[in-house]
Amino acid sequence: MDPSLLPFFSPSGVVIIGASHDPSKLGHGVARNMVASGYRGAIHLVNPRGGRLFDRPVYAEVALVPDPADLAILIVPAPAVPEALRACASRGIRTAIVTSGGFREAGPEGEALEAECVRIARESGVRLLGPNCIGVLDTHLPLDTTFLQPPGPLPGSVAFISHSGAMCAVVAEQARALGLGISRMVSLGNQADVTETELLPLVAEDPDTRVVTLFLEGVADGRRFVEESRRIARRKPIIALKAGRSTGGQRAAASHTGALAGQEAAYAAAFHRAGVMRAGTIEEMLEWARALEWCPLPTGRSMAVLTNAGGPGVMAADALEACGLPLAELNQATRSALQGLLPASASVRNPVDILASASPEMYAACLRLVLSDPGVHGVLVMLPPPPMHPAGSVAEALVGVVQASAKPVMVVLMGGDSMRYAAEGLRAARIPDCRSPESAASALAALAGRAEALGRSEQPPAVFGNVRPEVVREVIREVIRDSMADGTDTGTASATGAAGIWLAPDDAGRVLAAYGVPVRRIELARSAAEAAALACQMGFPVALKVASPQITHKSDVGGVILDLADAAGVASGFTTMLARVRSARPEAKIEGAFVQRMLPPGQDVIVGALADPQFGPLMMFGSGGVEVEGLRDTAFALAPLSRPDADALVASTWAGRRLCGYRSLPPADRGAVIEVVLRLAQLATDFPDFVEIEINPLRALPDGQGVVAVDVRILAAPSSGRDSGRDDAITPL
Amino acid sequence: MDPSLLPFFSPSGVVIIGASHDPSKLGHGVARNMVASGYRGAIHLVNPRGGRLFDRPVYAEVALVPDPADLAILIVPAPAVPEALRACASRGIRTAIVTSGGFREAGPEGEALEAECVRIARESGVRLLGPNCIGVLDTHLPLDTTFLQPPGPLPGSVAFISHSGAMCAVVAEQARALGLGISRMVSLGNQADVTETELLPLVAEDPDTRVVTLFLEGVADGRRFVEESRRIARRKPIIALKAGRSTGGQRAAASHTGALAGQEAAYAAAFHRAGVMRAGTIEEMLEWARALEWCPLPTGRSMAVLTNAGGPGVMAADALEACGLPLAELNQATRSALQGLLPASASVRNPVDILASASPEMYAACLRLVLSDPGVHGVLVMLPPPPMHPAGSVAEALVGVVQASAKPVMVVLMGGDSMRYAAEGLRAARIPDCRSPESAASALAALAGRAEALGRSEQPPAVFGNVRPEVVREVIREVIRDSMADGTDTGTASATGAAGIWLAPDDAGRVLAAYGVPVRRIELARSAAEAAALACQMGFPVALKVASPQITHKSDVGGVILDLADAAGVASGFTTMLARVRSARPEAKIEGAFVQRMLPPGQDVIVGALADPQFGPLMMFGSGGVEVEGLRDTAFALAPLSRPDADALVASTWAGRRLCGYRSLPPADRGAVIEVVLRLAQLATDFPDFVEIEINPLRALPDGQGVVAVDVRILAAPSSGRDSGRDDAITPL
Repeated sequence: MDPSLLPFFSPSGVVIIGASHDPSKLGHGVARNMVASGYRGAIHLVNPRGGRLFDRPVYAEVALVPDPADLAILIVPAPAVPEALRACASRGIRTAIVTSGGFREAGPEGEALEAECVRIARESGVRLLGPNCIGVLDTHLPLDTTFLQPPGPLPGSVAFISHSGAMCAVVAEQARALGLGISRMVSLGNQADVTETELLPLVAEDPDTRVVTLFLEGVADGRRFVEESRRIARRKPIIALKAGRSTGGQRAAASHTGALAGQEAAYAAAFHRAGVMRAGTIEEMLEWARALEWCPLPTGRSMAVLTNAGGPGVMAADALEACGLPLAELNQATRSALQGLLPASASVRNPVDILASASPEMYAACLRLVLSDPGVHGVLVMLPPPPMHPAGSVAEALVGVVQASAKPVMVVLMGGDSMRYAAEGLRAARIPDCRSPESAASALAALAGRAEALGRSEQPPAVFGNVRPEVVREVIREVIRDSMADGTDTGTASATGAAGIWLAPDDAGRVLAAYGVPVRRIELARSAAEAAALACQMGFPVALKVASPQITHKSDVGGVILDLADAAGVASGFTTMLARVRSARPEAKIEGAFVQRMLPPGQDVIVGALADPQFGPLMMFGSGGVEVEGLRDTAFALAPLSRPDADALVASTWAGRRLCGYRSLPPADRGAVIEVVLRLAQLATDFPDFVEIEINPLRALPDGQGVVAVDVRILAAPSSGRDSGRDDAITPL
Repeated sequence: MDPSLLPFFSPSGVVIIGASHDPSKLGHGVARNMVASGYRGAIHLVNPRGGRLFDRPVYAEVALVPDPADLAILIVPAPAVPEALRACASRGIRTAIVTSGGFREAGPEGEALEAECVRIARESGVRLLGPNCIGVLDTHLPLDTTFLQPPGPLPGSVAFISHSGAMCAVVAEQARALGLGISRMVSLGNQADVTETELLPLVAEDPDTRVVTLFLEGVADGRRFVEESRRIARRKPIIALKAGRSTGGQRAAASHTGALAGQEAAYAAAFHRAGVMRAGTIEEMLEWARALEWCPLPTGRSMAVLTNAGGPGVMAADALEACGLPLAELNQATRSALQGLLPASASVRNPVDILASASPEMYAACLRLVLSDPGVHGVLVMLPPPPMHPAGSVAEALVGVVQASAKPVMVVLMGGDSMRYAAEGLRAARIPDCRSPESAASALAALAGRAEALGRSEQPPAVFGNVRPEVVREVIREVIRDSMADGTDTGTASATGAAGIWLAPDDAGRVLAAYGVPVRRIELARSAAEAAALACQMGFPVALKVASPQITHKSDVGGVILDLADAAGVASGFTTMLARVRSARPEAKIEGAFVQRMLPPGQDVIVGALADPQFGPLMMFGSGGVEVEGLRDTAFALAPLSRPDADALVASTWAGRRLCGYRSLPPADRGAVIEVVLRLAQLATDFPDFVEIEINPLRALPDGQGVVAVDVRILAAPSSGRDSGRDDAITPL
């Protein structure tokens, strides 16, 4: 943790620059909250008008503020912020919260102002939170630098870090409504200096924090975020709500992998790798946090439902199943004991329906029995308005039973006003009261997921020794040289564009082969005769594919002929195909055709890698072929991958499940497929300047016979190998 | 509407049999609610103990009750119900609500008791609601036969019909919490006599009802439910919550269609056909109902977001997109006008961010501008706790603007206690206040969906004249005869089992051909020589497929050989294949092999029809081949189908979209595919005793060249053609 950030949460003296006497100003609210917070250090108010406020002196300028003073809150008009920052630095204050808005979010002028602030901060060693934020809050220290309307959040153990200040206000109120307390809260604003990733450890390592929640609109440094989160999530759960699913859209479609790997796929893979639990809504985030703070973790996923009516019981069963939580089968002892207590028309199978007449004592006794069944890992109690007993009495009777158990219990209070007393009683006992079976099931699933995550042992990434990065470097050197030698006809065709440089197929093949991926031999024939001769060398049948740097989707223009059985066929196929492609794409430079021997039948899959701008190499696996974008049977994971990571990636697609064989389809060489996924992940990790690498198809032959990369496309970044300041593998030195 | 049901909602006198003096008894609650309801007709209490209750006489028996009396409520122990029913009938009461439990739901004895009640009711002409229900409620008449704890639901325009009595209590409370009023409420209980489908028109045609909501655990008569709902939904929206998704599970997998068409698919298709809107949760059902009751319908799907902070704005955009509602592009005039009102750092693009400082008047002025943009069809207003103005004042300022507009507006109050006053103000003005952007977007989508449904013109089912049902009848007659003639070796192999009778492939082909589906010629060869001779007749290459009534998935046992190019290959293939199959399935009776000519390449799809026990013929379309169950690229619709129905069914799958061509894949004959779907739907409708019909694959040839059914499987019900009491097409008379 960066020690320069410590004063954000443990200042010895806080200076509020812009503390206002006018109650309608935010600068008034900040002073009000700081004073009301109970903060035990010094609070200094600064305003050129001077005077007194909240029974304290108001200093005309920062320079006049007495010691101690190590955290400044700036709530002055944006144009005055640079000067105020300089004054802080002169006064020796090295930590500043810039609450003021009017910066990058307000257009070019504000952007320049923000840049100036950052420059001042860097030069003077000041760490800056914001601008355009509402600051920080700690309910235990206590400390409150925000201008949120009171009451603030309840004290508790859930931390919240947010890119949006408004969401801090929302979470403070909504958490209170759930009976959930907050430990620390941070509003990040424009993140001109301090980012979510820097603050994460500061908040997570706070001993009063047991669960971390995040509202993210993006991530400043993806790889570091993943590393920090992964480290923290081993000890404390992290739940993120990521907004902006709709705005990112899909990338331009240079390859199937690129087209399918939207920002969403990258974030999903990153959260998965980081062990960050991803909530879909604010409600879900807070209900998960509450369950994680209040409930024991289940040792499995089998849940029981206790209900006093059939309909709600069926809804609970539906909700559990939708969350991947099967209904536990109750054992004979439990069923008999329930039968002994209940009328004959009750149901003692799961869902256990104890009927509308059930008294609070009956609810409690049945819950005790169900919880004691070893096959039950948690219980969802349904409580629609009971016709004969107040819900509050039922809740009261349940409390002791839940507290005596090491299994999680959620109580669903299905109703409105009649449930208020029950809700209060449950919360006071730290038992989650949910409004719907869906939210209760979702919280139980979060608990089960957390338990599973803690139980998984970490596997190191697979690293193969028999790879030859020097060959890859050599290829890159050649490609760069060729791409710089404009107009030369080198034969190792490569297309240069804004996105980067497409490697010629034979170069792409060399790259993969250097990392141990079996690649089908491919040779360029410049004439029909040469094609026929190459085919005779390789053995029949063969395929011909047009060679043109401008044509990346060859079959779209008739640039592929398969299954040519003899030399004559190859020669005439060559001529026909080139004529066809020329008429389809008259502007394309055509160098001839690639010759490849046809492969035995097998299952075609796609394996891809993409350099995600946020998170680095992102791997894709799925159903291969030309339909890949239509079928969308693909899955993503961040590289590098361990063997279990690759296994899980493959298994999460239909293509991966099919590798094990399906009906008349024989099993393919799944082990070899997984090895290619791992080797490609290693290549993508070693060479981050490969923007996209795609094997489509990778043909998986019958089990034991391996795999062959049939078609390979590699896009190198335009700057590949030119950035001599870097010393990673791609630099051709 | 059945006139015998009218007294359930407009009785002239109500008799409560089992009215109890003991406040802890449900029979007390029923009497209490009836008296308190304000019901204007006669209320008679019956209890053998006599006395007075609620200032009324208690009669010792039904026979003593004076006129008027046409509705009885029975809340006596189950064993006493039959006698009480008889007493009602004798007294001339022909309508009874049996509130008592202890019937079918309580085991075999209760089941017998229930059967006895039904018998008595049928014999004496009594209509019976329940047993095991909580009766009916009408807030306008008014009338309340339930024992729900007061307060009952608010009066209003939303009706609720429920299989679960507990859900009535839940909905009454939750609707009240949303400010939503109820018109009529019905609890159906065990539906021993009166069903949801019978009551639907009675409730829907009530002039005080504007929206109908349903909680269903199943449907008693699927086809009739679809017809009734479809008729009603043209005038009033119907929203259903169907519980029991998890319990039904999948059917036994006799065919791909059967395996994929779970109960869920059938319900989804039925609701789609009926025009019933399907909610996922109680909250969603009630929020949709509220929006449909309170808001105007939008004329399109483009929505605007008005927010005072960025984070909530992004969440709203995400939520809208997830519901299929794109962000409207604001026109220049709107943007300029907003710019004129707002500070420079505000965003005048959609989402419109008017900043945290926005006053109530600013909120209102900006909402007015956004609503007046012709490209905006509705608005989602985000209201996180405003730091400087109470949320209630903002809400107050918005009311007039919303009420003056013909476009729907949802206001999301993101917070807790600070939002209470705002919520009350909005509800009083019939403006939906939502707790989350997700629920607001879902309600806007429901409005848009309703508007679209009202705009669609109804198309009649496609009916082809050139079909020959008499040929199908002839095939069925033969199959029945053969299946009854045990042990005979007729050659037209058919397998008989519990599920039904599999038609031999050539018979199945005849059936499809009779309905105008092009079927590949297929002939049975009993010897290698015969196979070779048939192949020479048909032309090469050919395929061989094993002929055995016991083997339905032929390729699973090596029972298919493709691409045999000459007579010698056919003969040796025949011998090899039969040996292979015999060793794989020694118990199977093998009759030889079917010979078919190989087809030109094309796109293989699956078209299936299944006789759903609830809803009748259910059509399936999707990606065909052996992987169909793995890929799950399939969609369902209830037969019969109009041409637009079939078009939508096909278009909802990747296979259907691919028919239009994709990259190098040429367009296939989509028109011919749709015709096959329609013809199969007609066949399935004409012959409901065909349990399953599956064409897999149906090969779609290039556009203009038609389609060919390559493999056809038909399963006929075991009773096919034997039910001489029926006069539909399948009867072989």
